[in-house]
Parts: sequence; structure tokens; C-alpha cells
Amino acid sequence: MVDRSYFDWNATAPLRPQAAAALAEALAVAGNPSSVHAEGRAARRLVERAREQVAVLVGAEPGNVFFTSGGTEANMLALTPAIETAQEKRPRDRLLLSTIEHSSVRTGGRFPAGMVEDVPVKPDGRTDLDALRGALAEAARPLVSLMLANNETGVVQPVADAAAITHAAGGLIHVDAVQGPGRIACDIGVLGADVLTISAHKLGGPKGVGALVRRADDIHFSEPLIRGGGQERGLRAGTENVAGIVGFGAAAAAAGENWLAEAGRMRILRDALETGLKAIAPQTVIFGEAAERLPNTTLFAVEGMKAETAVIAFDLEGIGVSSGAACSSGKVQPSHVLAAMGVSPELLRGAVRVSLGWTTTEADIERFLAAWRKLAKVLSKGHSIAA
Amino acid sequence: MVDRSYFDWNATAPLRPQAAAALAEALAVAGNPSSVHAEGRAARRLVERAREQVAVLVGAEPGNVFFTSGGTEANMLALTPAIETAQEKRPRDRLLLSTIEHSSVRTGGRFPAGMVEDVPVKPDGRTDLDALRGALAEAARPLVSLMLANNETGVVQPVADAAAITHAAGGLIHVDAVQGPGRIACDIGVLGADVLTISAHKLGGPKGVGALVRRADDIHFSEPLIRGGGQERGLRAGTENVAGIVGFGAAAAAAGENWLAEAGRMRILRDALETGLKAIAPQTVIFGEAAERLPNTTLFAVEGMKAETAVIAFDLEGIGVSSGAACSSGKVQPSHVLAAMGVSPELLRGAVRVSLGWTTTEADIERFLAAWRKLAKVLSKGHSIAA
Repeated sequence: MVDRSYFDWNATAPLRPQAAAALAEALAVAGNPSSVHAEGRAARRLVERAREQVAVLVGAEPGNVFFTSGGTEANMLALTPAIETAQEKRPRDRLLLSTIEHSSVRTGGRFPAGMVEDVPVKPDGRTDLDALRGALAEAARPLVSLMLANNETGVVQPVADAAAITHAAGGLIHVDAVQGPGRIACDIGVLGADVLTISAHKLGGPKGVGALVRRADDIHFSEPLIRGGGQERGLRAGTENVAGIVGFGAAAAAAGENWLAEAGRMRILRDALETGLKAIAPQTVIFGEAAERLPNTTLFAVEGMKAETAVIAFDLEGIGVSSGAACSSGKVQPSHVLAAMGVSPELLRGAVRVSLGWTTTEADIERFLAAWRKLAKVLSKGHSIAA
Repeated sequence: MVDRSYFDWNATAPLRPQAAAALAEALAVAGNPSSVHAEGRAARRLVERAREQVAVLVGAEPGNVFFTSGGTEANMLALTPAIETAQEKRPRDRLLLSTIEHSSVRTGGRFPAGMVEDVPVKPDGRTDLDALRGALAEAARPLVSLMLANNETGVVQPVADAAAITHAAGGLIHVDAVQGPGRIACDIGVLGADVLTISAHKLGGPKGVGALVRRADDIHFSEPLIRGGGQERGLRAGTENVAGIVGFGAAAAAAGENWLAEAGRMRILRDALETGLKAIAPQTVIFGEAAERLPNTTLFAVEGMKAETAVIAFDLEGIGVSSGAACSSGKVQPSHVLAAMGVSPELLRGAVRVSLGWTTTEADIERFLAAWRKLAKVLSKGHSIAA
């Protein structure tokens, strides 16, 4: 892709060179990790080394990392009434979800629809902890699922507080942390999460691999999602995606080492972007601005703009941005996140997400602002852009 | 792996060079296939081209290919009471499985245990069609799952006949064909399968990607296994494993073009291997020998041999073989396949699988036979081999 500026890192990040190199090496290892011969043992070593790297990234023990085919599968695996602890073996009786969770959490995983309850967010984009407290009081053995940071607004959720409240009420908490690593601190112990979802391709690993991580081994899943083999200690059957897992491990190591510096750089660039957006079009609204946000994310709109038109207009300028989550086969749908925050339907349909990464440069920001200078007025009138 | 002879292609095949090259190129494409910008569209094109390549391999329409994280997930996805046709929307009331299916099928997928029924095999390793006919007569809307060829013995199952019988009884048939492509004909229409599972890594693609293929678009799955996104036309949520899928497509194209020549070569080498095994130890039993088998597979034993000891002994000679399926985290368990064929427990525990591939050479066969010449006598006495 010559001469493009990619601003859709929350949808997927380019592969880190460390991940590409490790993955290429792993592709040359022929064995099946379940085989006992030398080829199999070599593949097994690669998988277990990657497991250590991913464990370090989130402060877990390697034995508590379970590889999946991605964040969505990890969420499906986590959200089941059959999540147990050594102390409490009866099934969970309620699933509490914030209204801004990713669609793969919003479906409720393997909970029957009648057992799922919403927890609202406040206008600033943060989950309402008083509402959570109230909902927890009405369940005996609740499971809460709260994302670490919202993929659209970047608003960081009050996970540690929610975890404390949840545990005090006898509940367990799952955290969809796919947007976190490489951007903000993401230690499972500090967050207080019981189980945590992460995804390789959001942090510079390949697409198609993720992990469900548990706090400790007293947490059990008595119902695997994919059965019929002993892989991942019985929790996830099927021959491991060895190369993908190795790429994940290498990306996790790179993201973990560099994240503070990367986050600092991204924040400076992102803040410059936002200053520029408002200077060019003072009516620009930046969603979630009042809350702590990921350092790489800006979700903005101007009254009158249509997001789908804006995305195409920016694309024609060589800039890749998103109209929100990229998870529904390109279909543009009004953002459930902004709706939950009480944003008006008119403004909401114009929301454009700009998400940065570790290769984003000042030149990319300047290019974006040059395009915005050209497009802001016409887009805010709801016009299409001639190709 | 210097100076090794790999004979475990039924567990996993080395990556084909065409797959490695295509996969490496795909890794450089940053976009999420669900994104509408140029990066996203580039990723989408890669996925859809791979879908065409996989479709061609099994004689299906691209729109009827659904990518999964592998054969096991595809089997879980297929085996659900909620598989419907345009003509029959009521749920399936029975799942009929041969007793030699892979463990990912033997679990029964998403059927309750009480709805699953076994169909026995004959001593030659082929499924008993009379028994199938009888079982079908007792169900109203059965789903049959029958593998194309057994992973342990290589015995090719009477799929087309079973499909005809199943359809005559108002049933649907799923075929786990993961061992087929590249070795025997595998056209979904010729087989008469309604849905078909294939796996990339068995045919020279990467581990961690597979597909469920349907005969036509009048077959519906009303219950996806992994939900929360519109990918794979709503059947399989989660960002696509783009590079893995591209590697799968390239491997499928290569396997499809070359399979007749490859199969012919493998058969000649495999037959030489079997002749040699018997010449060295005339008491050698080759399982499934009386039936049509995959051209690359030999499962053999001699009375007194312990498979786990034999696998280690061959490994020390630089030869990778298997004691059966490689799907239970390296645990050696007695073969349910041979037990189903009525093989005695003594003989069964000595079964060693030798599976060949397109890079297997005459020198590999000679090496294997040299090792067998050295080991046959001591292994048949049940002795361990000093390392």
C-alpha cells in the first residue's frame, strides 16, 4: 500500500517485524505439538514459549493462558454459566454486561438471553458503577463482563473498581482487554479480573489468534466451546495454530517491552490531531473526551457529517479510518456505544474513528489534518464526495 | 530438523512452499477484511481469492465455503441439531456416527449425548452400511457423520453409498474429509455429502485454519458456534485469520493440481514400505489391508510390540512416526479405531502409523526399513530401547 496513512489500529494493527520473523521461523517447523517425536516436541516448545511471552504481557502464569482463534472465541469461551471456582461450583445465575461492550460480548456468549442484564454507561462513556452495584445485589452468583477500554471511543473503563465491587458481591468478572496491551497497563492482578481476553492482531500479532487468561488455577471452565481433543489442557480442542501463536508471543513480547514509550508517542500525536481537528472545525465533537482514554484513539464528529461518506472521502485521500467497529462485514450500523452514551442520532451517525499505532508519524497527522481542512466543510453539509 | 525422515503426515503436513510464499505476502497486508478502506478491501480480496481456491479443491461454490480455525471447529459447527435445509426446518433428531470417527466427531458436537448413536465398522475397517441402514430407519430426521478416510488405518469409507442410503432415508450427511485432499478424490458432489470438513494443515497449509463446506445454499446453520460478528456470512464471528486462510488457499490450489501424481508416487513408496516390513518381520500385520486405503498410510503392528516404545525407538533413529492420532496432548491411548475393528488388545497396543507425503523419498523408505531391520526383533519382545 504505497503512500497511505493507516489510522485504523483499533480494527487491526500491522504485524510487528518481531512477530513476522518469529512466525516465519515457526512455519518451517513441521510437527504437530501433540506428537511425541522430535518434530512434535519442537512445535510444542514453540507454543509453550509463546505462552510464557503472552503470560508475561498480562502478569499471569503461563499455565493460566489458553490460546483461542481470537478475541471473539475467547469471549464466547469465557461467557458461560459453567465458569466455576474451587470455592463455588454452582453455575452462574446472571451475566451483567455494560451497554458498550463489543458485539462478541453483547451476544451474551453461552448465557440464555433471559439471564443477561445490561449495566448502563454515563455520558462520559464510563460504566455506571452504582448501577453495577445495584444489578449485582439482585443476583446470587453473577458474572460481570466489562471491557478494559472501549474500541470506539477509547474510554478506559473502571475495571479495578468494578472488580472490587463484583468480588464483594460474590461475583466473578471477565475483562475483554483486547484494546489494552501496548497502550495502557494490562496486568490481570492489578485489574482484579478473574478472566481476561486478549487478541494478537490488536497488538501487532497475526489475525486469527487470541487467548483467554485466568487469574489463577482455581477458576475452571467445565464446558469447553470446541471439544474433541486434549489441547489447551482440555479447554480448547484442535491442532494449535502454531505459527499464529508464535507470532502472538513475539508481538506480546515486543508490545510489553515498548508500550510506555509507544503510548507516550501516540498520545502526543493523538493530542496534536485533536487540537488540529478543532482548530479546523471548531464545532468538532470528540467523544469521551472527559474521561481517561486510550492514548491512540479519537472518535469525533461534526453535526451533519455521515460517517460512511467520510470514511470513503478519507480513503480517497489515502487515509484509512473507520466509522466504528469493523466487525460486521463492512456494514455501517449506528454505534451502540454512542447511543448508550446518550449521543443524539444526528451526531452519532457522523462519528469517525481515528486510531493510531507505533508506526504513526507526525507526517501522518499532518496528512490527516490537511485532508480534514479540505473535507470538513463539505462533509458537515452531508454531501457525498465525487470519486 | 537435519537428517530426519518425517512419516507423520496424517498428524500434520509440512507447509507447501506455495502456501509459505502466499502467507508471507498476506502478512504484509495490514487491513481488517471487515474495514471499508483500501487496506480492508485488500485483505478482503485475499480472503475471497482463497475461498475460491478452497472451493475448487472440493468442487463447491465459493459462497458455500466457511472458514474456521480448523477441522475440529468445523466438525463442532457441523454437528448440531440446528442444521436445516430449505425443505426441512425442524431440528435433526438423531446423530449417527461411525465408531471410527475422529475424537472431534465422536464427542457428538452439539448433540445431546442421548441423541447420538453408533454405527459399527466391519473387521476390514469399513463402516457397516447395513447397520447404517438399520439405524437410519429408526430416526425421523437423522444427521450422519462419516469420515472420508480414517486417520489411523487410512481405510477409505463408503461415503457415496452411505450418502445415497442417508438421503433415501430423509437424512443429511456430514463428511469429515480432512485426510482426503491431495490423496484421493474429494468432490463434495461426487461424494454426495451435504457438508464437508477440511483442514489446511493436513494438505500443506498452516495449522489453525479449516473450512466447513456445504453442498448448496439450501443448507443452513441456525446456530453458529462462535457468535458476535457478521463474518463468514454470520456463521462464524471473529476477525478472519487472513494469512492462514491465504496459506490454506495456496495449499489447496497446489494440492488440487498435483494430487494424482503425488498420490501415485506415495502409493508406490508406501507399497514398497509394506513389502519391506513383511520381508523383515513376516508376522507384521497391516491393518485395513483388505480395504481400499489412502495411498500414503500404513498402520502396522507385530505381536508383543508396544507402540509408545516403538515411536521413541524410531525417533532415536531419526524417524518421526505416530502411535495413532496425535490429538490428545501426546497421551498414548489404545486406538478406538482398531478396537472397533475387533483387533485384539495385545496387537492393538503395538500399532504404529507411518504416513507419507509429497516430499517422502525412496531414501526415507530405505531408512525406515533399515531401522525396522534393527528394531523389529527387540520391539516384538516388548523391550525398551536404551537411549
